[in-house]
Amino acid sequence: MRPSGRAVDQLREISLEINVNRYAEGSCLAKFGNTHVLCTASIDEKVPPFLRNTGKGWVTAEYGMLPRSTHTRSDREAAKGKQSGRTQEIQRLIGRALRAVTKLDGFGERQIKIDCDVIQADGGTRTAAITGSYVALHQAFRLMKDMGVITALPLIGQVAAVSCGIHQGKNVLDLDYAEDSEAEADANFVLTSNGGIVEIQGTAEKDPFSEEQFLGLLQLARKGVTELTVHQRQALGLMQG
Amino acid sequence: MRPSGRAVDQLREISLEINVNRYAEGSCLAKFGNTHVLCTASIDEKVPPFLRNTGKGWVTAEYGMLPRSTHTRSDREAAKGKQSGRTQEIQRLIGRALRAVTKLDGFGERQIKIDCDVIQADGGTRTAAITGSYVALHQAFRLMKDMGVITALPLIGQVAAVSCGIHQGKNVLDLDYAEDSEAEADANFVLTSNGGIVEIQGTAEKDPFSEEQFLGLLQLARKGVTELTVHQRQALGLMQG
Amino acid sequence: MRPSGRAVDQLREISLEINVNRYAEGSCLAKFGNTHVLCTASIDEKVPPFLRNTGKGWVTAEYGMLPRSTHTRSDREAAKGKQSGRTQEIQRLIGRALRAVTKLDGFGERQIKIDCDVIQADGGTRTAAITGSYVALHQAFRLMKDMGVITALPLIGQVAAVSCGIHQGKNVLDLDYAEDSEAEADANFVLTSNGGIVEIQGTAEKDPFSEEQFLGLLQLARKGVTELTVHQRQALGLMQG
Amino acid sequence: MRPSGRAVDQLREISLEINVNRYAEGSCLAKFGNTHVLCTASIDEKVPPFLRNTGKGWVTAEYGMLPRSTHTRSDREAAKGKQSGRTQEIQRLIGRALRAVTKLDGFGERQIKIDCDVIQADGGTRTAAITGSYVALHQAFRLMKDMGVITALPLIGQVAAVSCGIHQGKNVLDLDYAEDSEAEADANFVLTSNGGIVEIQGTAEKDPFSEEQFLGLLQLARKGVTELTVHQRQALGLMQG
Amino acid sequence: MRPSGRAVDQLREISLEINVNRYAEGSCLAKFGNTHVLCTASIDEKVPPFLRNTGKGWVTAEYGMLPRSTHTRSDREAAKGKQSGRTQEIQRLIGRALRAVTKLDGFGERQIKIDCDVIQADGGTRTAAITGSYVALHQAFRLMKDMGVITALPLIGQVAAVSCGIHQGKNVLDLDYAEDSEAEADANFVLTSNGGIVEIQGTAEKDPFSEEQFLGLLQLARKGVTELTVHQRQALGLMQG
Amino acid sequence: MRPSGRAVDQLREISLEINVNRYAEGSCLAKFGNTHVLCTASIDEKVPPFLRNTGKGWVTAEYGMLPRSTHTRSDREAAKGKQSGRTQEIQRLIGRALRAVTKLDGFGERQIKIDCDVIQADGGTRTAAITGSYVALHQAFRLMKDMGVITALPLIGQVAAVSCGIHQGKNVLDLDYAEDSEAEADANFVLTSNGGIVEIQGTAEKDPFSEEQFLGLLQLARKGVTELTVHQRQALGLMQG
Repeated sequence: MRPSGRAVDQLREISLEINVNRYAEGSCLAKFGNTHVLCTASIDEKVPPFLRNTGKGWVTAEYGMLPRSTHTRSDREAAKGKQSGRTQEIQRLIGRALRAVTKLDGFGERQIKIDCDVIQADGGTRTAAITGSYVALHQAFRLMKDMGVITALPLIGQVAAVSCGIHQGKNVLDLDYAEDSEAEADANFVLTSNGGIVEIQGTAEKDPFSEEQFLGLLQLARKGVTELTVHQRQALGLMQG
Repeated sequence: MRPSGRAVDQLREISLEINVNRYAEGSCLAKFGNTHVLCTASIDEKVPPFLRNTGKGWVTAEYGMLPRSTHTRSDREAAKGKQSGRTQEIQRLIGRALRAVTKLDGFGERQIKIDCDVIQADGGTRTAAITGSYVALHQAFRLMKDMGVITALPLIGQVAAVSCGIHQGKNVLDLDYAEDSEAEADANFVLTSNGGIVEIQGTAEKDPFSEEQFLGLLQLARKGVTELTVHQRQALGLMQG
Repeated sequence: MRPSGRAVDQLREISLEINVNRYAEGSCLAKFGNTHVLCTASIDEKVPPFLRNTGKGWVTAEYGMLPRSTHTRSDREAAKGKQSGRTQEIQRLIGRALRAVTKLDGFGERQIKIDCDVIQADGGTRTAAITGSYVALHQAFRLMKDMGVITALPLIGQVAAVSCGIHQGKNVLDLDYAEDSEAEADANFVLTSNGGIVEIQGTAEKDPFSEEQFLGLLQLARKGVTELTVHQRQALGLMQG
Repeated sequence: MRPSGRAVDQLREISLEINVNRYAEGSCLAKFGNTHVLCTASIDEKVPPFLRNTGKGWVTAEYGMLPRSTHTRSDREAAKGKQSGRTQEIQRLIGRALRAVTKLDGFGERQIKIDCDVIQADGGTRTAAITGSYVALHQAFRLMKDMGVITALPLIGQVAAVSCGIHQGKNVLDLDYAEDSEAEADANFVLTSNGGIVEIQGTAEKDPFSEEQFLGLLQLARKGVTELTVHQRQALGLMQG
Repeated sequence: MRPSGRAVDQLREISLEINVNRYAEGSCLAKFGNTHVLCTASIDEKVPPFLRNTGKGWVTAEYGMLPRSTHTRSDREAAKGKQSGRTQEIQRLIGRALRAVTKLDGFGERQIKIDCDVIQADGGTRTAAITGSYVALHQAFRLMKDMGVITALPLIGQVAAVSCGIHQGKNVLDLDYAEDSEAEADANFVLTSNGGIVEIQGTAEKDPFSEEQFLGLLQLARKGVTELTVHQRQALGLMQG
Repeated sequence: MRPSGRAVDQLREISLEINVNRYAEGSCLAKFGNTHVLCTASIDEKVPPFLRNTGKGWVTAEYGMLPRSTHTRSDREAAKGKQSGRTQEIQRLIGRALRAVTKLDGFGERQIKIDCDVIQADGGTRTAAITGSYVALHQAFRLMKDMGVITALPLIGQVAAVSCGIHQGKNVLDLDYAEDSEAEADANFVLTSNGGIVEIQGTAEKDPFSEEQFLGLLQLARKGVTELTVHQRQALGLMQG
């Protein structure tokens, strides 16, 4: 039995609420159970220097945790004067994941800046961030299309992410903090809606794991991401009833 | 007529929602209209060095704005590597305001750390932060009392804050961004529930103002703070009906 | 009796000495008793980005304390690698105070940079800094006029500042460190020569204070600033006899 | 044909030279073709705070590139005042990889600090760093055993790493810069000598890739790591003739 | 003829004024012509970690320039967030110079912190800083002796410094900014009152210089330092009439 | 007898190996005994702002030590977030030394960036860095000449550096760490091949030293630099035999 009582292949309760910020061109409050991440997409009319005069755009992401999003308060990164290695790793991952489904030559020399701020953390903040950020990015592109700035959404599929791990010898989907903190192995999968692999990061926390175990985790991830992409389409109003 | 259609002495719609964070010892989501500030209180069993072995505790505050809490995205302070002067000014103000109503010798050598994170900004973020932080602080003390750590709440009254200003020649209460950005003068008042002045910060944005104008603003602030302290008591369950 | 033997409404001995720096376009060594602040005004031919091509100028200020300006040595901010929140608060205040009496469209796209360096501190460094900075700024504008760069001084009055506080139950003017460190309340007033309020910052250090007390402090401040503006005019050679 | 003329499953010329630093407790200059990484292991008698009084030790790593290790000079991180997100990601990865084969309770409360400095870069610096660091770590433990500080090497296997990728539609082993910069997908595999998976990081650089493609890369990686662990044993003098 | 009209072996007008700071244990305003450096000595009852429990003390120095001490305003180091290489070079030099004449085992485990702040700069700020700092240090030790903390001044001679250089082909003593900025060579000499060399730093600004030229500069420096040490003794009241 | 068994006027074994880096426009691994410094020269087509549109070029240097280049591991400057005062002092010295023999108007508006990274340190790293950097710089200029970018090498002589010191009462050449750490005095000499003095930095580590002692050190330095410049010419292929 999992600490939360979930089946091994069961996601936490998922909620992707849009339009949660008055100002952002796209926004989504992504909840994976008690993990809550606020994702916004902001359109910037300037690209980074390496893209100037290329006709291409860029998608980038920043990530942060509120100091008391965690069980015990963490120091505020702005007060410490630097972002941790973990923060930088995660925000680079989010950016890569979103760029993997974006046609960078399809929206002019603009930059979409994604902000993922963790309001409450219970494991899986990076996967909730990626899943919610896709929704915010989609909205921002839709706004650009509605305003006539672009004629088609520069997206080549959906992307979502979920963690899987080995907990007490069993493969489980979408680890919460209780599982994550004692998992034997932990992997994050960023997959597209049509089954493609965008990013895999797997780590043996205790003993090395085998290829069979790894493939088991990948199967769970496919199931989870398929469900998450349905949530995304529902949130975006892209599904019937 | 004010841009929002409010009467000159009318607060925005106020909401002080408690228990919005699973982990914090106290929490309050303070909404002054479209200004939303998440306030948490965290108990730290260590005091700053200057209070060690004095038997006294401390209350301190940190403040931050999510990058897209504003109309146009602001740079993330953690990414820039430092907090702005404005941020530091505000967090120092919040700390002083809360300490003014706290008996620092009444809860042992502990530190209550208040975090005020602006989810959405539409003017008056520091006043919403102070008003909501008081609620979170009160809850944290109540938790300590419930756990038998202290026998009485170390609070000597309520504290709340509101801004007033001169907009198009008229004194108005609780400025939103539209008013704030074109006000002739702007003042923040931190007052106690029984009418005492804790902190006043008034600034002439255009021409210097007169004592009479200033007293007019103070009158508005008293009215506003009286209403805010009612909201605080309701949120804390300290009122009938 | 005040620790210094002064009457409650008596300023410390004031000295505003000009031309104390060979290079600066304006300079003033402001002494309020044992508080000594060296103020210089430097003309920069470039404005900050937000003012480019607006035809407007800017006045800004920086503040610093020499490490041994205080009773016990403080760490050097340059060595620590950042300015404290207090430093930033004060330098923002000085800038606002000076801009309140400056016609920003009256001296072209230039920036006047004020530096206030505390040589010795005995309370009231920010008020001495504002009072002396006005003198340095006035000189810099006069130099520009003498050189034919502008035809009129872009100033709409004088500005000076003084602190008042409640010490041992009495309202007193121009607190020195001995009083400041044990005052019940403390307020800084930035006023113009014709009685206008530019900035008010009042803080209850112990108990909240009342409106009546606050108005008492304001009356003292008016008296003090009136005297300070006379000192400014004398220093600038704008008075007979 | 690969740019280097290698077969798809062929490593670059591998060299693991030990004792390249007079002072370090372990050292290895790892060369994967033109990628040269100097790895040292330093024994520190102090553990990080979270391990004090636990009886456990720690292994950590730092990574850096000399400014002209790359085709065009990069800015020196020490001069810029911070380590890039990429640097932090890599040094965290190296630390995790080594800890995965280390018995942390087998060498007392000590910390082994690994430094990986890239002298010349031609793709695959992180995999060369892990492969060489294992050798340096092994030597440091052997030194401790020789000095009687420990009685057995606290290692539970060998660890090495290699990159694989999809280049011009083909799966290839051990990418050099020419391949890496135009690969369709890129994955780093950290594996143990007995086939266990310690860490997998795979990224689709252009289109998402399939499970089949991923498994193909893993097979290549197994072959490469098997060869690398032979090189490690040779370097450490653990193999016959 | 020198720009200032001085003879080649003539110092600028020298003034070493003591007791210029109410709080410091020693203080000296050193003026070499228009170069004015405020030097204070502060006694700290703690030594740096490497000296704990050795019975030895330490002397260290910090150096800074006020932003408008120079012809054109320089950025404030505290605002930039770091000290320049030049600043660090100078403060390390001042510390070494003073330690060279101090018996570090003669005043207990204490640290004397010297602060040298340049109020106005016209060349030679580091030599004025060393010359004035010796006076401040001497006073601080005298105060400790007067208070009975030590029984003898832990000083083994006087130290002072002067610059010499080659200007328009001639060796000149004590360069001012006009000479310094166009000198062919420039050297700073830190010498003791009895002729010993503590530190020499010579730099060819244009062409390399010869041993003969260098010895000529050293002769000038001896003459200058002899005079400076007389000024020091006069300032300290150690000379008759 | 010196700790190393060398004669008092004997250099350590010197090796200047060129072409040690595939990418740099010039490179030299300079070995003074166990002190190994990797020097690279990188051509940058941009000059610093103060030289734009002057037609002049610039030569600058950066210096760093690998963390375990020393007997005990030092903290990594990139991880600490700043370069030490010592590092900055040394890199400024290297830059000045090279510029002293470079015609800055002889290679267009370009900047040569020298990187000196200490692989292993046994005293004298700055002198090895200068001696090796000259070789790398020479190669970079030769490459520019070979490519037709310039018609003549913009060099006005060779420059090399060596340390001398007083160890156990005797003047010795080219101190290693064992001598350096207990020397009574220590001086670094940067000299040209034809005997000119470019830079002298001498420090009394214990007692002040005399002019005679200093001249003795200078004589040793001349001998050492003469030999070093022969090594430079050999490394550059400028000598017969």
